[in-house]
Amino acid sequence: MSHFFKVKTLDDVLSMTSQFGSTDSETVEISEAFARILALDVTAPGDMPGFRRATMDGFAVNASATFGASESIPAWLEIQGTILMGQVPDFELGPGKAARISTGGMLPMGADAVVMVEHTQTIDDSSVEIYKSVAPLQHVIEADEDFSSGEVVLAAGTFIRPQEAGLAAGLGVTTLPVHRVPAVGIISTGDEIIPINQEPAPGRIRDINSYALSGFVQEAHADVIRYGIVKDDPDRLRAVCEKALDQTDMVLISGGSSVGTRDYTVEVLSSLPETRILVHGMSVSPGKPTILAQSGFKPVWGLPGQVVSAMVVMKMVVIPFLNRIQGYRKPRRLVRVPAKLTRNVASAQGRRDFVRVVLEMVLKE
Amino acid sequence: MSHFFKVKTLDDVLSMTSQFGSTDSETVEISEAFARILALDVTAPGDMPGFRRATMDGFAVNASATFGASESIPAWLEIQGTILMGQVPDFELGPGKAARISTGGMLPMGADAVVMVEHTQTIDDSSVEIYKSVAPLQHVIEADEDFSSGEVVLAAGTFIRPQEAGLAAGLGVTTLPVHRVPAVGIISTGDEIIPINQEPAPGRIRDINSYALSGFVQEAHADVIRYGIVKDDPDRLRAVCEKALDQTDMVLISGGSSVGTRDYTVEVLSSLPETRILVHGMSVSPGKPTILAQSGFKPVWGLPGQVVSAMVVMKMVVIPFLNRIQGYRKPRRLVRVPAKLTRNVASAQGRRDFVRVVLEMVLKE
Repeated sequence: MSHFFKVKTLDDVLSMTSQFGSTDSETVEISEAFARILALDVTAPGDMPGFRRATMDGFAVNASATFGASESIPAWLEIQGTILMGQVPDFELGPGKAARISTGGMLPMGADAVVMVEHTQTIDDSSVEIYKSVAPLQHVIEADEDFSSGEVVLAAGTFIRPQEAGLAAGLGVTTLPVHRVPAVGIISTGDEIIPINQEPAPGRIRDINSYALSGFVQEAHADVIRYGIVKDDPDRLRAVCEKALDQTDMVLISGGSSVGTRDYTVEVLSSLPETRILVHGMSVSPGKPTILAQSGFKPVWGLPGQVVSAMVVMKMVVIPFLNRIQGYRKPRRLVRVPAKLTRNVASAQGRRDFVRVVLEMVLKE
Repeated sequence: MSHFFKVKTLDDVLSMTSQFGSTDSETVEISEAFARILALDVTAPGDMPGFRRATMDGFAVNASATFGASESIPAWLEIQGTILMGQVPDFELGPGKAARISTGGMLPMGADAVVMVEHTQTIDDSSVEIYKSVAPLQHVIEADEDFSSGEVVLAAGTFIRPQEAGLAAGLGVTTLPVHRVPAVGIISTGDEIIPINQEPAPGRIRDINSYALSGFVQEAHADVIRYGIVKDDPDRLRAVCEKALDQTDMVLISGGSSVGTRDYTVEVLSSLPETRILVHGMSVSPGKPTILAQSGFKPVWGLPGQVVSAMVVMKMVVIPFLNRIQGYRKPRRLVRVPAKLTRNVASAQGRRDFVRVVLEMVLKE
């Protein structure tokens, strides 16, 4: 069958993520939401911080009362009272008046700015001189400076880090709508694959991939169901595939990197109901013999048997599809570190090469 | 009490990790070992790959039989047989003889090198001309090239990534000795802290820290037990602390960033049995009012109440202590990205400042 398929570029393959859906949503307590993906936007239930607040110690004023004030011609204001931290002022600031306030304190009605204490001189208990004019809202946080009521605070598709959990807590949002954690089914195929507790005869190889691939799925915060080793028997592989498709959201078939076995995996996948082959070969190295099929709404992968190839394809290609199923709206960005190669690396035209490197910090100058 | 304590530098504080122990070890299946820390070295149970293997298609030879061979004066060897992939050769290579072999094939006894097929010419079914001499072990992987029997393959203190799980699987190691996952107790203190489902009156603040700090603990792959909010009541705080110390491996007390409350936390900690204050103030910003006590073998932290300060101290200072308890032998390295500041950042002498930044990639030239 392979001659029907053209080798696809990495970008072609990655653009196919949009053909797959995400898991449905469920509601969890924010204490359980770490590493989950938001399924719906979260909006601010009210203005944050909720009231006008001083950012400096000094005097709450109406800014217009200070206009033109300077060292030589200070403004003279009457002290109407003192606002204690955590208190709602029980008075409205009158014209030509000021109120003592500390950082974080709530401005009284009628006040729209704070004069820093350094720019004032208290004359007596009831009057203060102002040596510097302030603009409206100077040294003040507005009631809706952080968020205004109804504003989107956390967008659907957001990964919940400690910071996002803290933000939700601060807003009084106690539960979050998140995507269900997807399950990934892992099947090893090939007559040459043996369980890891057995001693391999020459030509046999222990089932490394089931364990390495499981690790990548767990690292991505998804669940794993392992279906063990299936010998080269199309009927058996078809049966295990159908079971895995029924129980999970994505299926990985590892092994069969040789052309013969690859065709056999494609044949089995093609025979599944509502399944079509999307990719049969990618122009990447390592990882060329990768297969992607769509079965219903679920992706099924045929991964190279060689363990390094399988891990590279997993990290660079399969995980973005898993992220899509998890509910990410945008592809996750890998950390990119610019570095200088110590030797030339050749690549065939049109092929994307993934080369493992050791990073070394070199101090400049 | 605070005048008894000198503010400590970050390096002083981090050097104290060595005063604390790690959790004991337990044995888990490698499928359950992801993100766990190895408690003991894992050694190779035998040589890997286990036999001499060809890295090229060609002829297995005794290198000495090819010495001096060239295009003009080829060596003439008798073909003794063909080694199929996955087969144990059933013959020993005689002097002046060669055996057909493919990449990955097992060399017969008597052979120590492979001549690439490009440098040979088969004369008839039973003889081959060699046009290039090979050195002993050329185009060959030695039996113990990956690992020799008994060699340390994974050292105690290693974090189990997918790669390490795969390596263990390849070695036939089905279980791993790992450290028990530590539990971290989180206590919020302060009369001003209210549960997150309540509407804060002015001067009240929702219990953000319990949730943000929990997230950091989960991100570090440890377990969280939350002990809720404790009002400013020394007896109650002492009781909750003792309970948390009994049930967990490390305790975080969040809140009390003001000098008064800080002294009160120190007072409670000092009154616990077998407990001494190690740190009362750090020369970092934010995060100065941090307290560290040692209670028995367990660390107890007094963290700043302000959420950003608490998160910075958590990431830069507390997590390295948690890593120590988890069983890391070396401090985990954060990814460092060299970058240019767009504005100057001032810092007081002797103080370590942590400034949150946005990284922007600028293309050079």
